[in-house]
Amino acid sequence: MSKVTAQMSVSLDGFYAGERHGGQGNWIDSAEAAGFFRVTRWLTEAMAWRERQGFAGGEKDTNSDIIAETFEAAGAYVMGRRMADGGEGPWGEEPPFRVPVFVVTHRPRQTLTRKGGTSFTYVTDGVASAVEQARAVANGKDVNVAGGGSLVRQVLKAGLLDELELNVVPVVLGTGMRLLDADLGLADKEAIELTLNRVVNTPTVTHLRYTVNGRAALVLDDRGRGSGE
Amino acid sequence: MSKVTAQMSVSLDGFYAGERHGGQGNWIDSAEAAGFFRVTRWLTEAMAWRERQGFAGGEKDTNSDIIAETFEAAGAYVMGRRMADGGEGPWGEEPPFRVPVFVVTHRPRQTLTRKGGTSFTYVTDGVASAVEQARAVANGKDVNVAGGGSLVRQVLKAGLLDELELNVVPVVLGTGMRLLDADLGLADKEAIELTLNRVVNTPTVTHLRYTVNGRAALVLDDRGRGSGE
Repeated sequence: MSKVTAQMSVSLDGFYAGERHGGQGNWIDSAEAAGFFRVTRWLTEAMAWRERQGFAGGEKDTNSDIIAETFEAAGAYVMGRRMADGGEGPWGEEPPFRVPVFVVTHRPRQTLTRKGGTSFTYVTDGVASAVEQARAVANGKDVNVAGGGSLVRQVLKAGLLDELELNVVPVVLGTGMRLLDADLGLADKEAIELTLNRVVNTPTVTHLRYTVNGRAALVLDDRGRGSGE
Repeated sequence: MSKVTAQMSVSLDGFYAGERHGGQGNWIDSAEAAGFFRVTRWLTEAMAWRERQGFAGGEKDTNSDIIAETFEAAGAYVMGRRMADGGEGPWGEEPPFRVPVFVVTHRPRQTLTRKGGTSFTYVTDGVASAVEQARAVANGKDVNVAGGGSLVRQVLKAGLLDELELNVVPVVLGTGMRLLDADLGLADKEAIELTLNRVVNTPTVTHLRYTVNGRAALVLDDRGRGSGE
């Protein structure tokens, strides 16, 4: 059965972009873009990312291998509406996904079929439905939650995420769009427990991959004053 | 010359404790305590931490080695008032520090001398002064910013922190007291750049140690459309 995975590039303080662009002026001139460019720079330097975008060059290094592996593992994608809208132009006629993409949106729209295997299907009945539709066509490969951060958070909140990989970039942005924000719907003294299953470190980014175990109550301990004393 | 360092245990979403205890009821029953206990549990299981607290037992493992190394490296500590007040009882007659501690506070108080080399000196003229006083007695060893999170943030904000180690615990708390919060005083499109200088991974915690390079402007890149194309 397919795993549901997500990979997000974040700053050390947990932001995947700068402060959200409110719509005044061009996005490219916004703090949101400046932060987003900083935390995703390692991607644009990697050969495997560049190949998928149709760009030559780049480094064939550990980061590139991780990107290639993640692309290869994905049998289908789930994507937020804002990311899909933002990417539609830049991704052009042959987007980098090469498998079906299910876009979570409130606006019905006809499926968009692109070259190279990518299609965009617009799902208006919620995140769980989009994940199910992606799973149905993933052929046992991963359902990859492409982003943005708000969608990753919704999938985590709904208990649908099996694996979360944070690509932690050594920068503190101070403010911005935070991946793990307060709206996770956790009860008082409740947490989501995870298990780290891989760490890969490179000079520009640290890849921390976690299995999501699910919700659990927070319990106190005896702070070491117990049996050992 | 002494380095100024800080080590903080944080959840994957960046909290070092649960939601701040407002003073209603006992701290130990608060969400703050529940979150704090969760992210610091790895410490209480380690022999080197237990020894310093006067407890027997514990694991002699990688985590213990890191704790021992950190204690050994510290020539003096700087500490926030809330942490000092909270610890005064539990640490007892022979606190774990064994070197001078400088407490940043608004309330003047006579220096408190404890057994084993620990003293608490109350500094009322600010964080920079406390760091300077600690440096003056550290004999070239590290000035360790013991916490809490608010003080670590102030030292980082003031440009006085040379090294930050995050002990990242695989749990998402959802809400709480965040280490890297918005009050870092960064300008628009400005960030604090760091360099990862050590990663040590264990099943219960991932130690990410960064050199703080300082503030820098965020710049856009050409997203790979440049020379390589």
